[in-house]
Amino acid sequence: MKAVFFDGTLKIIDMEIPRRKEHEVLIRISKAGICNTDHEILKGYVPGFTGIPGHEFLGHVQEAENRSLIGRRVTGEINCACGKCDYCAAGLGRHCPDRSVIGIMDHPGAFAEYICIPESTVVEIPEHIPDSRAIFIEPLAAACEILEQIEIPSQSRVLLIGDGKLALLIGLVVSSTGADLTVVGKHENKLSFLEESNIRTVLLTDFVREPYDIVIEASGSSSAFGLAVECTKPRGTIVLKSTCAENLDFNPSGIVVNELMLVGSRCGRFKDARAFIEKGNPRLEKLITKAFPLGRALDAFRESEKKDTIKVILKNE
Amino acid sequence: MKAVFFDGTLKIIDMEIPRRKEHEVLIRISKAGICNTDHEILKGYVPGFTGIPGHEFLGHVQEAENRSLIGRRVTGEINCACGKCDYCAAGLGRHCPDRSVIGIMDHPGAFAEYICIPESTVVEIPEHIPDSRAIFIEPLAAACEILEQIEIPSQSRVLLIGDGKLALLIGLVVSSTGADLTVVGKHENKLSFLEESNIRTVLLTDFVREPYDIVIEASGSSSAFGLAVECTKPRGTIVLKSTCAENLDFNPSGIVVNELMLVGSRCGRFKDARAFIEKGNPRLEKLITKAFPLGRALDAFRESEKKDTIKVILKNE
Repeated sequence: MKAVFFDGTLKIIDMEIPRRKEHEVLIRISKAGICNTDHEILKGYVPGFTGIPGHEFLGHVQEAENRSLIGRRVTGEINCACGKCDYCAAGLGRHCPDRSVIGIMDHPGAFAEYICIPESTVVEIPEHIPDSRAIFIEPLAAACEILEQIEIPSQSRVLLIGDGKLALLIGLVVSSTGADLTVVGKHENKLSFLEESNIRTVLLTDFVREPYDIVIEASGSSSAFGLAVECTKPRGTIVLKSTCAENLDFNPSGIVVNELMLVGSRCGRFKDARAFIEKGNPRLEKLITKAFPLGRALDAFRESEKKDTIKVILKNE
Repeated sequence: MKAVFFDGTLKIIDMEIPRRKEHEVLIRISKAGICNTDHEILKGYVPGFTGIPGHEFLGHVQEAENRSLIGRRVTGEINCACGKCDYCAAGLGRHCPDRSVIGIMDHPGAFAEYICIPESTVVEIPEHIPDSRAIFIEPLAAACEILEQIEIPSQSRVLLIGDGKLALLIGLVVSSTGADLTVVGKHENKLSFLEESNIRTVLLTDFVREPYDIVIEASGSSSAFGLAVECTKPRGTIVLKSTCAENLDFNPSGIVVNELMLVGSRCGRFKDARAFIEKGNPRLEKLITKAFPLGRALDAFRESEKKDTIKVILKNE
């Protein structure tokens, strides 16, 4: 099969179709989304990463022990957990110390024609959700995770910093709480997606610093962290949503003096994201800037890095 | 009156006794404690600070509108709040945006013979609490603040990093919750104070990194922040207790990936601290390394910086 492979440089290789192990399913991938984490991996965010990246995907089950799954259109949870530890027992398999993470840690990723994943991580896609929306389930789950971690009261003032792929999804999710949301970003074309959903947006150059109850940092820029601290009310909350290879240089006194609470937030539950799509019918397809066949993955990565690009999809159809 | 004054350099000056404004009391200070924040102020932690530092004190009321206060032994809350804003209404005057802070921001401090403070901030000291314990009410309140902000279940494993003045008080307060506490520090003589209260301590050189539910960073060292992140379980909590002039250089990914919660923690309620002393009778006097007359404040500051020194007191008797 064809696969994208990273071993210090990114390339397309031919390799064997993976063999399904016990309790796994084999999926023929139809679509996969390029995420910022994929770019960060290329920059060294996961030291020593070698293999197939990619963790946002859709496909059809080809082989499975549970034969009712065969032919089904599915995606798969990004974290493959042990199912036995305290975290797994608490429904927090995404923190299982023995987990592998698809396309990130100890599990081949989805920028390929086929993938094997544990049957327990398979999430079916209902027929009425088109591919162009379902492909966002993984990053949308990461956006929904915020609501699983903190309460956003409807009367709260929330600032979201960032207008990238993940930030726009967070904008939709936070807006659904009824909170008074402002999104600050650098790209008019990206912010317009939220404006169309009646979400208040402002360009960073026009942004006036004010105190907010909750600030969500999802820009991945190291300077945004200082902005977040500055714009959070005493006893307010900052949600950190970006994983990046770059270090921050900051003075923690602002956090201590104002007794801020910082909450790191990563992956979420796919079922929450699927429910969010089913309930709200968000027009997520508008976030897809361009689709490339898998064989043109290198072009797709280049396209994905462009300033005005939102989501780039790899197709394998 | 004699007063310690900082205007870029630390000196002892003679100045007028301050005049009591409306709703203020005039206090003759008997004792004042030197805190790490005072040293940080000398290093530039509060840009442009000019005036009398010092915010831990005891004294006797000399003048007051409420005549029943006259002659009473008292201390004063460090934050002088407006009493009218939403924070004040919520009992969070220590976050009042219009507050002044004794010896730190817009209010003369306590390293002097006299001080005027708002009557509303006066906290009386019951007779049975000796000066040598009551002088710790301000830093002890800062230690108690942690319990006001986060829950420490008795079955949780807690790591406290630091063995300075504040850290030792935090050790006593956290230990009172029944949690399984380990304190890591650099100074055997300081840690021995906690050992005498049956609190497990370990020297940093012997410390084995393990995951804890809650990590409290109270060492004021920038390298301790990384240690805290490394020793916190996924979904665990880090309490940041140090204000310092120095910047941190760190990668936030550890916080995001493990979905840690960071809580900045500063001043607490004096009444909680007073109650803690009354209930537990902690032998706080053992923390006093040396006392100096106010006129020898410069020697006292030098003594306070020494490696093995815990608390240095200025006396004005």
